[in-house]
Amino acid sequence: MEELPEIFNRFREEIDNEMKSIISENDLPLYDMLRYHMGWIDEKGNPGDFNKGKFLRATLCMLACISTGKDYKKALPVAAAIELIHNFSLIHDDIQDNDIQRRHRPALWYLWGKPQAINAGTAMKVLANLAILRLQNYKIPYIKQIEIFKILNESCLKMLEGQYLDISFEDKSDVSPDDYIIMIERKTASLIEGAILIGAVLNLDFDKIIPFKIFGNYLGIAFQIRDDILGIWGNEDKTGKPHASDIRKKKKSLPVVFALKQSPDKIKKDLQKIYARKIINEKNVEKILNYLETVKAKDFCEDKCKYYYNLAINEIKNLPVFEEYIDSYKKISKFLLIRNF
Amino acid sequence: MEELPEIFNRFREEIDNEMKSIISENDLPLYDMLRYHMGWIDEKGNPGDFNKGKFLRATLCMLACISTGKDYKKALPVAAAIELIHNFSLIHDDIQDNDIQRRHRPALWYLWGKPQAINAGTAMKVLANLAILRLQNYKIPYIKQIEIFKILNESCLKMLEGQYLDISFEDKSDVSPDDYIIMIERKTASLIEGAILIGAVLNLDFDKIIPFKIFGNYLGIAFQIRDDILGIWGNEDKTGKPHASDIRKKKKSLPVVFALKQSPDKIKKDLQKIYARKIINEKNVEKILNYLETVKAKDFCEDKCKYYYNLAINEIKNLPVFEEYIDSYKKISKFLLIRNF
Repeated sequence: MEELPEIFNRFREEIDNEMKSIISENDLPLYDMLRYHMGWIDEKGNPGDFNKGKFLRATLCMLACISTGKDYKKALPVAAAIELIHNFSLIHDDIQDNDIQRRHRPALWYLWGKPQAINAGTAMKVLANLAILRLQNYKIPYIKQIEIFKILNESCLKMLEGQYLDISFEDKSDVSPDDYIIMIERKTASLIEGAILIGAVLNLDFDKIIPFKIFGNYLGIAFQIRDDILGIWGNEDKTGKPHASDIRKKKKSLPVVFALKQSPDKIKKDLQKIYARKIINEKNVEKILNYLETVKAKDFCEDKCKYYYNLAINEIKNLPVFEEYIDSYKKISKFLLIRNF
Repeated sequence: MEELPEIFNRFREEIDNEMKSIISENDLPLYDMLRYHMGWIDEKGNPGDFNKGKFLRATLCMLACISTGKDYKKALPVAAAIELIHNFSLIHDDIQDNDIQRRHRPALWYLWGKPQAINAGTAMKVLANLAILRLQNYKIPYIKQIEIFKILNESCLKMLEGQYLDISFEDKSDVSPDDYIIMIERKTASLIEGAILIGAVLNLDFDKIIPFKIFGNYLGIAFQIRDDILGIWGNEDKTGKPHASDIRKKKKSLPVVFALKQSPDKIKKDLQKIYARKIINEKNVEKILNYLETVKAKDFCEDKCKYYYNLAINEIKNLPVFEEYIDSYKKISKFLLIRNF
């Protein structure tokens, strides 16, 4: 079961159209950069249908809404908003990491330069905020709009805190697996949690959404650990990232953090020395892969991922959702655990 | 009359405290970067009292509120928000322009690196959004909060559009003074306009704030033209920027755009050639200053600035404000016209 669960396809087109509509309200070539990043046009502005990502966050938002109320269309503006926030973070991430590729295409900054890409990323974030105002078309009360606005911006702030920690880990030699979990809880889980919360809060009182928060948190952590596994042992054709790409990028992802903790001092020092260099050469990539194998880093990460997956699965029974959607929650969780892309 | 008008001092401390309080709700060293930028601490985290800027936007916001209602304290969260947005834009601006100094101190990115500075700037923007939620302490109705949220994010988007245009001008050889006005209307005037609007809308119906929009727009344009004058002919001690700094930075500011339009073809080509180089040397800085003098670029800019100043002054009579505050609107406008810093 590696294919996207059905629930991803159900809303995909509507989410995509909502985002297109949000961006289309604006002119200037600035917005073509955003359209390029979203996979709607090529770099010259010609329409196309490029890789757009899975819309994981938007799909979770839609699921949280439809599983707690009848009408799901009202969730489209906020599902689009959360997906735009995710994409703004990718645009800035690529700049920060000097990544020249995103979804098998040149990264935005690589084509337009970093100054314009920083600006375009921030514009995407502001458009996400403005998208909330579309809730008025669905007669969503102002207090709900404010609640959503609060959840969205708090999630985003936590994500930026996680990004701060992630970047700061690059210069730290003593990051522990616990530090790492704290980091990804903010960097990744907060937005996944936020996606589910804003979907649920459209139908439920603010104080009823705690189980969604817990579920989203665990799911988000499991998701990122799986991402770390794919970042080292993933299949290039499926992930769009080169073999061992996180090692080449000197990411202190969970496998590496674990290896640093587990290895004897001599090997730990060697690892630290390699990570302190500007570029990691092929020989050292292989060396690190061997170290990871010696300490069984992949098994450790898979166990950790399974652990948080189980916690998420266990929380599903506490979600105040229609019975018929329980299966979708389980399937989406299972997919995140075993996905290869 | 070059000193800051009294109105700037009146709210200064309260605005500063409000911003401190917004940022203090959060921990992590990430927020120390923001505190450093705001001039509250040095780079090691020691408290200090560094140059914080004029708080022009926040002051305009406070004035718009107090001149239309009795209670001005309720405007503090939004005044702080607009000032934080301005400061986020400065953090990103310095990264984009490779400016190593801001307010007589090293720029944020210069100390912490560009990846962290991009992230910190965006966090400042998100904090500005969250600051709006503080209006609940003043029992501001939800609909007003939504209106303010809308104005704030729309102003911010326009500012980013302006930034896009400004950066794109660097590679354009045929920018006209009209293009330039369109650019600064977005880049600078939109946030100044937004500052006044969110102050006024706290007391007035949304459809009553049009005159503030017009006033803010003209004032913002005049402000930026004055900034351009200071960017070339300003006094380093007062502006904190080196002599002819905009020329060294190859900014297509109004004096240069005007000179490009006015000069005979031979000189125009020479100017374009100089601006196409990676770095402008001292000899060429002098050459450009001479060209600007030949075409009387400073006079042109001062006339333009005066023109928009007069339009702003003329709009003051249409503002539905208490009579006693008319003078403050005039004084603040006058200051922006003739300021040396």
